[in-house]
Amino acid sequence: MNSGLVDKILGGDARAVARAISKVEDGVKGASDLMKQIFSHTGSGLVIGITGAPGAGKSSLVDKLALLYRQQGERVGIVAVDPSSPFSGGAILGDRIRMQTLGLDSGVFIRSMATRGNLGGLARSTVDAVSILDAAGYGKIIIETVGVGQDEVEVVKAADVSVVVLVPGMGDDIQAIKAGIMEIGDIFVINKADREGVNSTEKELEALLSLAPREDAWHPPIVKTVATEGKGIQELGAAIESYRDFHLRTQSGEGRRRSIARWRILELLRERLVSQTLESDLASEMLEHLAGEVASRRRDPYSAVEELMRGSQ
Amino acid sequence: MNSGLVDKILGGDARAVARAISKVEDGVKGASDLMKQIFSHTGSGLVIGITGAPGAGKSSLVDKLALLYRQQGERVGIVAVDPSSPFSGGAILGDRIRMQTLGLDSGVFIRSMATRGNLGGLARSTVDAVSILDAAGYGKIIIETVGVGQDEVEVVKAADVSVVVLVPGMGDDIQAIKAGIMEIGDIFVINKADREGVNSTEKELEALLSLAPREDAWHPPIVKTVATEGKGIQELGAAIESYRDFHLRTQSGEGRRRSIARWRILELLRERLVSQTLESDLASEMLEHLAGEVASRRRDPYSAVEELMRGSQ
Repeated sequence: MNSGLVDKILGGDARAVARAISKVEDGVKGASDLMKQIFSHTGSGLVIGITGAPGAGKSSLVDKLALLYRQQGERVGIVAVDPSSPFSGGAILGDRIRMQTLGLDSGVFIRSMATRGNLGGLARSTVDAVSILDAAGYGKIIIETVGVGQDEVEVVKAADVSVVVLVPGMGDDIQAIKAGIMEIGDIFVINKADREGVNSTEKELEALLSLAPREDAWHPPIVKTVATEGKGIQELGAAIESYRDFHLRTQSGEGRRRSIARWRILELLRERLVSQTLESDLASEMLEHLAGEVASRRRDPYSAVEELMRGSQ
Repeated sequence: MNSGLVDKILGGDARAVARAISKVEDGVKGASDLMKQIFSHTGSGLVIGITGAPGAGKSSLVDKLALLYRQQGERVGIVAVDPSSPFSGGAILGDRIRMQTLGLDSGVFIRSMATRGNLGGLARSTVDAVSILDAAGYGKIIIETVGVGQDEVEVVKAADVSVVVLVPGMGDDIQAIKAGIMEIGDIFVINKADREGVNSTEKELEALLSLAPREDAWHPPIVKTVATEGKGIQELGAAIESYRDFHLRTQSGEGRRRSIARWRILELLRERLVSQTLESDLASEMLEHLAGEVASRRRDPYSAVEELMRGSQ
């Protein structure tokens, strides 16, 4: 089963990659066989996670970084995580705009991942998609996440290199610290660096970083970019390489890979257990019934879950 | 069990509320008895979810809204969701700053909820905390979420009224649309409305809203505020009331309450199933062993999860 598809993926066939990603997006069940077969072929691509607040210009930055890698002869996979619902059209709109810059280049694979329904699994399907691109021989795989929520942070943590994108003027707000993105950045980018306030943002960022030295002794560099004009992209590429070299030299990646694996197992476990519990028609009906009871406060959610777990055994 | 604590919560005792929230934060097990006992006493408080990008000034806005409600004689609960790790100190810093404005007022209860470890449950513990405040008679309960990630969006959707906070200048970026926050806002706030670009942001927002009319025929109002100066807060309070009235009049809240209940059951189910699978020492050891194997790619995550599920039966 799947062996034709697996062979095509390992051969770098973009259509097979697209089909495989749809499989892992559709749910944990269909993904299982496929992922088991390709996983041992992963590990050679460099996975770059890019995150930051909406409006920070991440898409432009990702596109320009992809172009840089293309010029270096690398095949590039881009996985954009869209936490919005499938109804918003955000992902589609974003993809369409991208097609103008990168779309006709067969060395670039672009995919937006969106939430599908209530059962979660976006983080799991995103890292699965990255594994598929990795197995297909894409040398650089960029994960772009919109927003800085819990799941998004996890996805970026699962990358080999995490890049946090800021813009001038954010630094003056305590919220920027609270967002919890400071500690996940291996590299910081101040994008839109032609705007006012870039120096004070850089100073504040440096101050924040010096407050929290890292265990691995890496000092996260700050790269200033104007992504729309392609400025600073070379420097960003160089910073990413130097972090990769540091990792290889110090073997500090060991613990990180282990905690990524642990997280990945837990995400998958969560999803499988829930889909196993709810897979029968009876259980789905029971869920709907219980939801009605909880909504009207005739029953509390905890008792409802116990009933659901009893019913599915 | 817990009955002393339950009585104190229902009597509005703030210390008991704090203790109960710690219980639901510690894990799904200790929370169960407590939540079963208080759930039928919930439903009278108005739950207001406030979200927006980092730097949008949500904390100031929440504080000023809380002050408005205090002037109206209401008791106010504030639950701030911090998706960062417990190590960042973000939540603590935020709380400290808040204490200067609201801290000594016994009619205000403030709590920051942070991620605890790998097992998730932040969304679940947040809605549980809201239920506790509700049972304790807090008439207005404000959930403030940092960032616009998937979990955060779900938490805000679980509120009676969802407020999305924007700032001038965000509207010019396609990312703002992609963030998926447009469709969850019952009310939009343009904060920092003394900044340049407020009118164009308002126009773009209006255009976006007119593209996606709501099923319930509510037209989300746009409120301009300068939270740090208290400007526009009265108007925000009025907008929140008018949405509540609309809901009561049209009974459009029925479907929403049902889907909130469904989501809440699923969150809880997920957490219980995972904690049940991993509760033995053997299972935890197995998880660590498997994480090592997946990290070194000797095993794929899917096979690891199957082994973990077999081992726990």
